[in-house]
Amino acid sequence: MKTRTIIALLTDFGVKDGYVASMKAVIISRVPNCQIIDISHLVEPQNIDQAAYLLWSSFRYFPKNTTFICVVDPGVGTDRKIICLESEGYRFLAPDNGVLKYVLGSLKKQKIVSVQNSKYFLSKLSTTFQGRDIIAPVAAHLTNGLAIKNLGPSTTPLFHAERFVEVLSIAHEQYQGKIINIDRFGNIVTNYFLSTYPKGKMLLSVGRKTISEFSKTYADGTGKKPFMIIGSSELLEISVRNGNAAKLLKTKINQKVNLKIE
Amino acid sequence: MKTRTIIALLTDFGVKDGYVASMKAVIISRVPNCQIIDISHLVEPQNIDQAAYLLWSSFRYFPKNTTFICVVDPGVGTDRKIICLESEGYRFLAPDNGVLKYVLGSLKKQKIVSVQNSKYFLSKLSTTFQGRDIIAPVAAHLTNGLAIKNLGPSTTPLFHAERFVEVLSIAHEQYQGKIINIDRFGNIVTNYFLSTYPKGKMLLSVGRKTISEFSKTYADGTGKKPFMIIGSSELLEISVRNGNAAKLLKTKINQKVNLKIE
Amino acid sequence: MKTRTIIALLTDFGVKDGYVASMKAVIISRVPNCQIIDISHLVEPQNIDQAAYLLWSSFRYFPKNTTFICVVDPGVGTDRKIICLESEGYRFLAPDNGVLKYVLGSLKKQKIVSVQNSKYFLSKLSTTFQGRDIIAPVAAHLTNGLAIKNLGPSTTPLFHAERFVEVLSIAHEQYQGKIINIDRFGNIVTNYFLSTYPKGKMLLSVGRKTISEFSKTYADGTGKKPFMIIGSSELLEISVRNGNAAKLLKTKINQKVNLKIE
Repeated sequence: MKTRTIIALLTDFGVKDGYVASMKAVIISRVPNCQIIDISHLVEPQNIDQAAYLLWSSFRYFPKNTTFICVVDPGVGTDRKIICLESEGYRFLAPDNGVLKYVLGSLKKQKIVSVQNSKYFLSKLSTTFQGRDIIAPVAAHLTNGLAIKNLGPSTTPLFHAERFVEVLSIAHEQYQGKIINIDRFGNIVTNYFLSTYPKGKMLLSVGRKTISEFSKTYADGTGKKPFMIIGSSELLEISVRNGNAAKLLKTKINQKVNLKIE
Repeated sequence: MKTRTIIALLTDFGVKDGYVASMKAVIISRVPNCQIIDISHLVEPQNIDQAAYLLWSSFRYFPKNTTFICVVDPGVGTDRKIICLESEGYRFLAPDNGVLKYVLGSLKKQKIVSVQNSKYFLSKLSTTFQGRDIIAPVAAHLTNGLAIKNLGPSTTPLFHAERFVEVLSIAHEQYQGKIINIDRFGNIVTNYFLSTYPKGKMLLSVGRKTISEFSKTYADGTGKKPFMIIGSSELLEISVRNGNAAKLLKTKINQKVNLKIE
Repeated sequence: MKTRTIIALLTDFGVKDGYVASMKAVIISRVPNCQIIDISHLVEPQNIDQAAYLLWSSFRYFPKNTTFICVVDPGVGTDRKIICLESEGYRFLAPDNGVLKYVLGSLKKQKIVSVQNSKYFLSKLSTTFQGRDIIAPVAAHLTNGLAIKNLGPSTTPLFHAERFVEVLSIAHEQYQGKIINIDRFGNIVTNYFLSTYPKGKMLLSVGRKTISEFSKTYADGTGKKPFMIIGSSELLEISVRNGNAAKLLKTKINQKVNLKIE
């Protein structure tokens, strides 16, 4: 099938140890013409929240029929399930640990199965590397046209959809959110979703610091003062012009952030 | 067009945040068989000089018809132009901020247009990620055969060609140069271009240190003493055998380096 | 030849400097449809032992006809040989410095030649980057169907096979081994090979610490205590649940590790 040849990878395996390469080798052994695209392999070790965000922020740009492999999996080898989600023409393979929560929150008509049919796994299984032994060969089979119902029975995931905190365009409102990524530039990505600047002054509190400036581009900021900006995924971010906001504010992923609109 | 299917990427986005993946997803959605090659995504944040060097040092090894995407862009979202350079069968898409300066210095018969035709952009534009919203889809269109004249009017870039400091094969000469990269091994790359070892003793000064030894291979160096060597791009480098010259000499990119030939 | 289109790369070049990109550009200029897979470019600078392990741990997952490029090469530009090993349908290009030692220890019917025929090199050769100038174009020619006998005369490598320390399933035995990798999670990989848990209590000594616990999965470990686990390549590893064993035990690659079975 010509159009079903893209597999996207998201893991916390890093890129120094050859783990990702073994998965890619398993895939191209079975789908020689596969386009394999790395989303990231530098998710913080076992940081499921960050992985869930990175997957959500990029999956919409991939063409339909892409299969996503998401392996951030502190429970590898235990009895947690591996699930396959199919929705809107995309397929996602991941442990049932929450890594799909933001994707589940934004896709319709979902089919989910528990991946159990060992016919599609490598013949020799380790207990420590199911990404290579189970998920990669299953992704290859899906890419070659296998229907997900062949993988195992329908299931309800333990970890459900999570939605972003939608900031409404009205005044006198308060919201509670959190930090879901800190990018390479030190931009702090929150889980506040807003497509337009709301009426009323916004006050964003992180730690003991309150931020009230708002900027449209990174270059617009003034001095070394942190400002709010709507990021490329329509999530509210905190930035500093030519600086690192996360270092300046000493924040980390999962930290609470409060938003007040006057 | 069979031969026009390579896109090379150079950014300062890092590889942990999924930004590069979104660009690649935009590209392969439009050019399914595209060969996407990463030059680097670890340019120091907003270091235009380093990016300009990395692009120059690798582009000649790519086949004709390659399209290069270069996004190191402190001014994203402001009114700085995005330009497309076509020359000697290559195409380059980049902000007009100097990132093409060394390439401009070594290519002939250049056509340059200002990228303005929003018909080739994503339909929804962010102010913070034009690499994904403008440059990636335009690169896909070029790879599918679009002529650059369709992108916008001819333009003269604000940032012109910069040439390396050519070291002539004569004695009693003095030059002023700078450091343009420090590689993973700590090798210090300068902007002195020399294809052969000049007549007369070379004295290279960096900070308070003067280096007079010259070596043909990294393994030839003696002890822990820094030496000069002609690097793989015919630029003069400073190295230490089994050591890190940049740490030893405490140098950084853009630092001045003086060369004297006795 | 349809099936001979995969080249896998293993280097210590890092991913920030464009060196890997230049090699890939040389390859795709000659093999436009090549699947290039990165094994790792973050081998510790010049750590031949680590590179030998990473190559061994992943090569079996690649399909037959894959060509492997392994450039960890402190002796670049000196008179050390570049060799090409062909065995069991795989081809490996590497300096003759030991980087192939574990692969040599696990492959049968080996043909090895010394790579000398400059007809297959780039026309202009640097002394510092033979990965780009010699090994990449040679790999491209092999991928296009060239037989390895055309590269140069048969040779016996200076660096021979090295085998892992096979742990037998018997009691009252002592072994001497070493650390061959520390992965992103801090898991310590040793060169003890065991496919099943041996009879008798295992005691693993690293530095002043002796480890006697054994776990089947990473999640099974208790508290912050290091435990032994059989890793995904059937080598004995040391791990800590939700922690970094290598930091806890302050270990590094090549450190001695003793194993005693009571």
